[in-house]
Amino acid sequence: MLTNTQGVYIVTQTPFQADGGLDLPSIDTLVDFYARHGADGFTVLGVAGEAAKLTPDEAMAVARRFIGRANGKPVIVGVSNPSVAQLGELTARVMDAGASGVMIAPPSGLKTEEELFSYFAGVFARIGNVPTVLQDFPFSTGVWMSVASIARLVQEFPQIQVLKEEDLPSITKVTRLREALPRRIAILTGNNAMFLPLEMGRGIDGPMAGFSHPEMLSQVYRLHREGKVEEAHAVFDTYLPLLSYENQSQWGVAVRKEVLRRRSAIACAAMRQPGPRLTATDLSEVDLLLLQLQRRLHG
Amino acid sequence: MLTNTQGVYIVTQTPFQADGGLDLPSIDTLVDFYARHGADGFTVLGVAGEAAKLTPDEAMAVARRFIGRANGKPVIVGVSNPSVAQLGELTARVMDAGASGVMIAPPSGLKTEEELFSYFAGVFARIGNVPTVLQDFPFSTGVWMSVASIARLVQEFPQIQVLKEEDLPSITKVTRLREALPRRIAILTGNNAMFLPLEMGRGIDGPMAGFSHPEMLSQVYRLHREGKVEEAHAVFDTYLPLLSYENQSQWGVAVRKEVLRRRSAIACAAMRQPGPRLTATDLSEVDLLLLQLQRRLHG
Amino acid sequence: MLTNTQGVYIVTQTPFQADGGLDLPSIDTLVDFYARHGADGFTVLGVAGEAAKLTPDEAMAVARRFIGRANGKPVIVGVSNPSVAQLGELTARVMDAGASGVMIAPPSGLKTEEELFSYFAGVFARIGNVPTVLQDFPFSTGVWMSVASIARLVQEFPQIQVLKEEDLPSITKVTRLREALPRRIAILTGNNAMFLPLEMGRGIDGPMAGFSHPEMLSQVYRLHREGKVEEAHAVFDTYLPLLSYENQSQWGVAVRKEVLRRRSAIACAAMRQPGPRLTATDLSEVDLLLLQLQRRLHG
Amino acid sequence: MLTNTQGVYIVTQTPFQADGGLDLPSIDTLVDFYARHGADGFTVLGVAGEAAKLTPDEAMAVARRFIGRANGKPVIVGVSNPSVAQLGELTARVMDAGASGVMIAPPSGLKTEEELFSYFAGVFARIGNVPTVLQDFPFSTGVWMSVASIARLVQEFPQIQVLKEEDLPSITKVTRLREALPRRIAILTGNNAMFLPLEMGRGIDGPMAGFSHPEMLSQVYRLHREGKVEEAHAVFDTYLPLLSYENQSQWGVAVRKEVLRRRSAIACAAMRQPGPRLTATDLSEVDLLLLQLQRRLHG
Repeated sequence: MLTNTQGVYIVTQTPFQADGGLDLPSIDTLVDFYARHGADGFTVLGVAGEAAKLTPDEAMAVARRFIGRANGKPVIVGVSNPSVAQLGELTARVMDAGASGVMIAPPSGLKTEEELFSYFAGVFARIGNVPTVLQDFPFSTGVWMSVASIARLVQEFPQIQVLKEEDLPSITKVTRLREALPRRIAILTGNNAMFLPLEMGRGIDGPMAGFSHPEMLSQVYRLHREGKVEEAHAVFDTYLPLLSYENQSQWGVAVRKEVLRRRSAIACAAMRQPGPRLTATDLSEVDLLLLQLQRRLHG
Repeated sequence: MLTNTQGVYIVTQTPFQADGGLDLPSIDTLVDFYARHGADGFTVLGVAGEAAKLTPDEAMAVARRFIGRANGKPVIVGVSNPSVAQLGELTARVMDAGASGVMIAPPSGLKTEEELFSYFAGVFARIGNVPTVLQDFPFSTGVWMSVASIARLVQEFPQIQVLKEEDLPSITKVTRLREALPRRIAILTGNNAMFLPLEMGRGIDGPMAGFSHPEMLSQVYRLHREGKVEEAHAVFDTYLPLLSYENQSQWGVAVRKEVLRRRSAIACAAMRQPGPRLTATDLSEVDLLLLQLQRRLHG
Repeated sequence: MLTNTQGVYIVTQTPFQADGGLDLPSIDTLVDFYARHGADGFTVLGVAGEAAKLTPDEAMAVARRFIGRANGKPVIVGVSNPSVAQLGELTARVMDAGASGVMIAPPSGLKTEEELFSYFAGVFARIGNVPTVLQDFPFSTGVWMSVASIARLVQEFPQIQVLKEEDLPSITKVTRLREALPRRIAILTGNNAMFLPLEMGRGIDGPMAGFSHPEMLSQVYRLHREGKVEEAHAVFDTYLPLLSYENQSQWGVAVRKEVLRRRSAIACAAMRQPGPRLTATDLSEVDLLLLQLQRRLHG
Repeated sequence: MLTNTQGVYIVTQTPFQADGGLDLPSIDTLVDFYARHGADGFTVLGVAGEAAKLTPDEAMAVARRFIGRANGKPVIVGVSNPSVAQLGELTARVMDAGASGVMIAPPSGLKTEEELFSYFAGVFARIGNVPTVLQDFPFSTGVWMSVASIARLVQEFPQIQVLKEEDLPSITKVTRLREALPRRIAILTGNNAMFLPLEMGRGIDGPMAGFSHPEMLSQVYRLHREGKVEEAHAVFDTYLPLLSYENQSQWGVAVRKEVLRRRSAIACAAMRQPGPRLTATDLSEVDLLLLQLQRRLHG
C-alpha cells in the first residue's frame, strides 16, 4: 500500500557506458549515493531515466538492479506505454520482481475526459490490484487533467494511491486537489522540484524528483516537516541556480549525469543516443555553477 | 429563436476578385443561386468562407451583403475568434445588422472541460442573450468535446439553440447526443455533408454544409423527410464522387469555387491569398468529375 | 528490393476471438480471401491492424502467420514505435522471419525537419540495410513532412524504397513528389483508397489500403493500368458509398471486420479492447449499404 | 533600423481597473517606473500584456500611450494575429503612431518549414519594409523553428532585424544561432529572463523580458557587459526565487502585477477576465518571497 507514502522519492537516472550499453554496476553506486543523501524511495524508468530508449528486457534488468540494491526502500517503476498490452506485461514482471508499485501517465492522444476514464478502466481491468502512482505531467503527455477529473479517477480506481503532480502552476493545483480529492492519497511533486518548499507549504507529502544534489531535496523536506520554513527556503534558494540549470528537459538530464559523474555516483555521464552531448561551452557553465554553489555553501 | 431550426443551411463561400479584393456583387448572384437550389438559410464567415483572411470591416461588409440579399431567410454569422473582445464586438455588430444568430467554436488551446465551461461562461457573459450555434469541429479547433460536455453546455447556456456537429464519426455521435441532450435543440451536420443521408436517419434537422451542387443537399433532405430513404441515398450516391473531391479542406474550397464559377454563381473562382490555386492537372480532374456526374444524372 | 513495388498491397486486419484472444487460423482464411480478390502483397501490423494492442510476442505470431500463408507474396511489417530500441528488435525479428521489408512512420513529437532527419539517421544506424516503406500519415502521427523533406529523406537514406503517401490532398502531393524525388521509388497510397483512381492518374504504383471488398482495389488498379480510366472510375464509384462508410478511423475498422466476417474471410468481427463495438443501429446501416451495393452491382 | 538593438527591453504589462476597463494613466506611471529602473526600450502588447483580450481600438490606445510616454525610447509592438489581414492593419496603425517596429510570432497551425516560409512571405508582402522582431516562442505558438529555419528566414527577409529567442534550452540555441545566422541581427531573450546571465555569456544583446524588479535585468545586463560575470550572476541569483515564482505563465503575470502595484508602478493589480485572481494563500507566498528578497538584498 502506497497511500501513506511520504518522504523523498528520487527519480533516478539510468547509467550507460560511453558506447551506449547499460552500466548496471553504476546503478549500485547510484543507489548508494541517493541513499546516503537522504532518499526514502526511488522512481525508476521515468522520462528522465531514458526509459523509452530501452528494450523490454533492458528495462527489466534496470528495474531488478535498482530493486536489488534499494535495501528494502520502496521502488516505483514507470510503466507508461502507448500499448496497454505492453504496459500490462511490464507491470506483471516488475511486481513479480519486487516493485512497490507502478507509475502510469495517460498516453498522448486521449482527447476527452470520457476517453481518459475509459483508458484507465482498461488499464486497471488488465493489471488488477497493483498500487499505482498517477502521473499528472501534461507538458510531456499532452493530456490535461483538471482537478475534477483527477478527483473522479481517484474516486473510481482504488489502485491510485499516489499522485505525482507536475502540472504548472503546481502550487495552486496542489491546494485545489487537497480540497477536492474524495479520499486521502499521497501527493508528491515533480518538475525537478522547482517549487518544492512552496509545494510543501501547500500540503504535499514530499518530492518525487531528480537532482544532482539530492541532499537539497531531503534537507528541504525535513526542515519543512519540522516547521522550519524559512530554513527550508534558504537551503532551497542556495541550490536554485543549479536546479534551474538542470531543469532544461533532456539537455538538463545530460547536465545532471555529468554532475553525478563528478560526484562519483556513476562511472560515465553518457546518455544513450538519441540524446544531447555537452560541449566545451556547456561544461564551462557547469564548472561555473558548481563553483558558485560551493561558495554559497562554504563561503 | 433558433431552437426549431430545420432545413438546408448553406455554408457560403466569400467571393473575391482575381486581385484578392472583395467581390460584393457576386454575393448577390451566389445567394440567388443557393436559394434557387433549395437553401433554407445561410451560414456565413465560416472556415470555408475564408473568414480569417478578412479585416473586421470586410467581414461586416460581407455579412451585411448576405443578410441584405437573403430575402428574410435566416443568416448565421461565424464569429469565432481567439479574442473574446473581438468576438463580442463582431457579435454586436452582426446582430445589429440583422443576423439571426452567431456560430461559435471553442478556440484552440482549451485544455480541459473545466476550461471549456469557463470559456463559454465568459463568452455569454459578454454577448448576452444572442441565439448561438455551437460548432463541434475538433479537427479544426483541436478542442474535443465529449457528448457529456456538450450536454452540460446545453444545460447551462440557454443561448445554445443549435449544434453544428462535425466530429467523426458524426453518425454515432448524433445518436448519442439525441439520447443525452437535456433539452431539444436543433442538430445540423457539417463535414461537407459527407454522411448526410445516414445522419438524417440518425435524427438530425438538416445539413449545414457547403457544396457546389446545393440541389443535392436539398433533395436528400426533402426525400428523407418524406420517408423516401432509398431515393435519398440514390441522389446522394450520384453526387458522392464530386462531394468527396470537394471534401479536401482548403484545396477542396478552391475546387468548389471553380465549379460555382462554371455554374455562374460567382464571377471569379479566386481564393484570397494565402490559398491554393488550381493547376491544369487539377482542372482536368474537375472536368472529368463533372462529366461523369452529368452522365450519371442524364444517362 | 522494394524499389519496383507495384500492384495492390492490402493493409490487413488482425483477427481476434470474441474474448480478445488472437485468432491465428482466421489469418489463413483472410490471406486466402485477399489473394482470391487480387492482392499482390500485404502490409501487416498497421494502425488498422490494431498493432498497438499486441504484445511483442503476439505481434511476431501475427507476422509469422501472415508470412507463412502469403505463398511468396511480399509481406511488409509495420514496426513504428516511439522506442527505437523496440523498433530495432521487431525489425530484426520480422526480417529473420521472412518479411520483405518494414514500414516506419516518424513518431509523434518530432518538432522540426532537423529532428526528423536525426530520427531516421538513428533508426537506419540501428536497423541497417533493411528495405523500408516510409509512411507519410500526418493525421495519425502529427508529423508533417513537406515534399522537400521527403525528397531529402529519400536522398540520404537508400533504405527508403517505397513511400506510403496518405497526407491530404494526396493527389496534389503525389504530383509534386513525382517531380521532386531525387530517385525512382515506389509510391503507394493509403487513406483507405478514398482517392484511388485519381491517384492512379497522378502516377502512383498502386494502393496500400484496406477495404472489405479488395476486388474493387484490384479492379480499379488493373483497369487504370490498362488505360481504361473511365471504367476504373465507374467501378470505384460503385463501391464509394461503402468505402466512405469504412473510412471512419477505428469505428470504420469495426465495420470492415463485420463485413469481412459476413464474407467468411474471418470467423469473428470483434476488435480487441479498447475498441468500438457496433450497435443494432450501426448494423442496420451496414445492411442497408451492402444491399445498395448489391443492387448497383447486379441491377 | 533595429539591427543594432541592444540593452534592456521590458515586456510590459497592460494595466486595468478592477472592473476590467483599461487604466491608461497607469501606463504613464509604469513607463516611468521601468525607465527609472534601467529600461532601454519597451515591447508592448505581448502575451504577458494580455493583448488577446483587447479590441483593436483598445490595442491602439495602449500602444499610443506607451509610445507617447516612452520619451523617445524605442517601442516594439506585438502584432501577431492568426489573420494576416488584421496583422497588416495593426502594423500600419502602430507604425503611423510612432512604433519602432513590430514583433511577430508565427501562428499556431503552421505544419512544415515550407508553410513557415510561405507565411512570412505573405506577411512581408503585406506589411512591406517594417523593422521586425521575429519571436521564437514555440511553447506558446506550437511552431518549432530549427536554427536552420531561422537562418533561412533571416537570409530571405531583410525586415527581420531582431530575434526574440525563447525556445528552451535557450542557451545552446543562442550559441548555434550565432554560428549559423547569415548576417548580424540582434538577439534578445525572453522566457522571463530565467537564464539571463548565461545567455549573456552566450552572446545575446540583452533581455526582452518582464519582471516586477526590472533593476535586476538592467544590473545583470550592465555588469555582464562590463565583464563582471560573477557579479552579474550574484545579482541574478539574489532575485531568482522571485523570478522563478513569476515564471508561471498567466498566473505568474497576476503575481507580477500584484508586486508592481505594491511598488506603486500601477494602480490596480487586476487582470482582465478571463484571467487568474490571487487567493489569500497566494498572497501570503508573495509576502514571504518579498520578505526573503529584502533580507538577501539588505541583510
